[in-house]
Amino acid sequence: MQSIEQYSKEFVTYLEEKISVKEPINLYEPIAYILSLGGKRLRPVLTLMTADIFDCNYKKALDAALAVEVFHNFSLVHDDIMDDAPLRRGKTTVHEKWDINTGILSGDAMLINAYQLFENYEGDVFRKLAQLFSKTAIEVCEGQQYDVDFETRDDVTIPEYLKMIEYKTAVLVGAAMKMGAIIANVSQEEQNNIYEFGKNLGIAFQLQDDYLDAFGDPKTFGKQVGGDIIENKKTFLYLKALEFANQDQVKELEHLFSIQPKDTSDKIITVKNVFVESGAAQRTKEEIALYTQKAFITLEKLTISDDKKGLLKKFGESLMQREV
Amino acid sequence: MQSIEQYSKEFVTYLEEKISVKEPINLYEPIAYILSLGGKRLRPVLTLMTADIFDCNYKKALDAALAVEVFHNFSLVHDDIMDDAPLRRGKTTVHEKWDINTGILSGDAMLINAYQLFENYEGDVFRKLAQLFSKTAIEVCEGQQYDVDFETRDDVTIPEYLKMIEYKTAVLVGAAMKMGAIIANVSQEEQNNIYEFGKNLGIAFQLQDDYLDAFGDPKTFGKQVGGDIIENKKTFLYLKALEFANQDQVKELEHLFSIQPKDTSDKIITVKNVFVESGAAQRTKEEIALYTQKAFITLEKLTISDDKKGLLKKFGESLMQREV
Repeated sequence: MQSIEQYSKEFVTYLEEKISVKEPINLYEPIAYILSLGGKRLRPVLTLMTADIFDCNYKKALDAALAVEVFHNFSLVHDDIMDDAPLRRGKTTVHEKWDINTGILSGDAMLINAYQLFENYEGDVFRKLAQLFSKTAIEVCEGQQYDVDFETRDDVTIPEYLKMIEYKTAVLVGAAMKMGAIIANVSQEEQNNIYEFGKNLGIAFQLQDDYLDAFGDPKTFGKQVGGDIIENKKTFLYLKALEFANQDQVKELEHLFSIQPKDTSDKIITVKNVFVESGAAQRTKEEIALYTQKAFITLEKLTISDDKKGLLKKFGESLMQREV
Repeated sequence: MQSIEQYSKEFVTYLEEKISVKEPINLYEPIAYILSLGGKRLRPVLTLMTADIFDCNYKKALDAALAVEVFHNFSLVHDDIMDDAPLRRGKTTVHEKWDINTGILSGDAMLINAYQLFENYEGDVFRKLAQLFSKTAIEVCEGQQYDVDFETRDDVTIPEYLKMIEYKTAVLVGAAMKMGAIIANVSQEEQNNIYEFGKNLGIAFQLQDDYLDAFGDPKTFGKQVGGDIIENKKTFLYLKALEFANQDQVKELEHLFSIQPKDTSDKIITVKNVFVESGAAQRTKEEIALYTQKAFITLEKLTISDDKKGLLKKFGESLMQREV
């Protein structure tokens, strides 16, 4: 087994080898650009690590890992257009650096390129990877659509919200790991368990992102703390606060989430107070712990050595130990 | 063998059976909308017809035919955003009826759905279809990018133009037919020949579209005659005119293709005169005949009965016998 850093380094080397700008330049340059912006490379690392954990040479999983990363970046390029986002990883987004049309078309090419990477696998493995990929990709689209729909709805339920983040974020984490298991040719049951592990960890991770967006340490969080509050995003924290808070607090919260004041600091302070006083903040921490536990219970079902279970658990814990 | 109308009818019945609007509605409704707008259904009919010609029950090719049609419509939805087109087949385009974000995301889902349709085929057939599809889809994206690039270039060559229409339009016609051949499990050589037949017919068809855009009968052409001239599109006619015309004509043509007058009728008449007088119109007709001939020569190589060759030839001729 390698360290996370080693998988990541090996992956980035492979990615740089594979990404070349060919004609038409205006189609392929934006693809090379977004893929070289960096990021945590979390998903591809998980694919490599999972193959390794199931006793398969992790290098065999490099193409699938790259497909996952290319797909993830495809979804970022198209999402950034939809969100009109100027920056991604601190750099100009593709549609800002070029234009919207370039973002659309280069994104389309990335989605197709991701499928083509599976062609490096033989018969049945190719089929299983492509099928899992399609199912996951369509769920990611559905998740994104739910996210868009929720912006203009005021009756979003907690189960709906959880389904949205499961589709938009978590299934790709599960699929990234399952791909490693498919390449390692382990049993269907092992494949499903590692998928569930990744998916539940993905949900926990996204809920934690919601939490940190409000309560994270500005020095370490990376994004603007309070960003979701400024944008009136109906996160788990907000929905739970609506459920738990008293009538006056609910009224205030709904009012604050209907306005966009220039000076946002008062709004952020008030909303965070309601999140804490209503018990929503505490409840969110419990939910994060719950999904992390769910992931760890699935882990126990795997027929791998305790050492390897320990590694996966440690990885999960390290993800969850961002400054809460 | 069935008639074109029978294949088309059967295909539309199948499409209507398969297209259902599920949750999230805002993702799937636009897909059902664009797919139900009609159109010639030329590509899926070719898939069914090819399977039939190679002695395979054409119903087995329905899913591949649907994949081709879904992909074609995906490319229309994204292209219409890029071209800012208000109408498609006389109806409001997806991004106009909903919004750009809906067009992007529903388009993405269609591309993935197209891949999923191949899952209805066993092992090797699945792989071959998906692989051909990816290769074709990426070429269509590249063709679209070249088309966009050409708008701002004034040194486009004829070979570049031909490559652009080959990628943007013709390869999908070839692939649609090759898919029928793959499903019928004929030899690689037959598959390649039917692909070349379709591709060359596709190039001839697109060149004819360029020609008719200037010289078609307004009553039967369907689109606005002179549309390409109004939009300063560098078509085969225009590029050949630049090559053949005298200095004065070239100067006039380049000037007219750099302006966008309110009253377009004078411009259209002058440009068409140059197209005719320079010999570019005649040369375009010859090029159409050349690619049609190329298609028919490949046809001769196929090991199917003369009757079936006759059918394919008749179909090709009927495509080429629009009012020139």
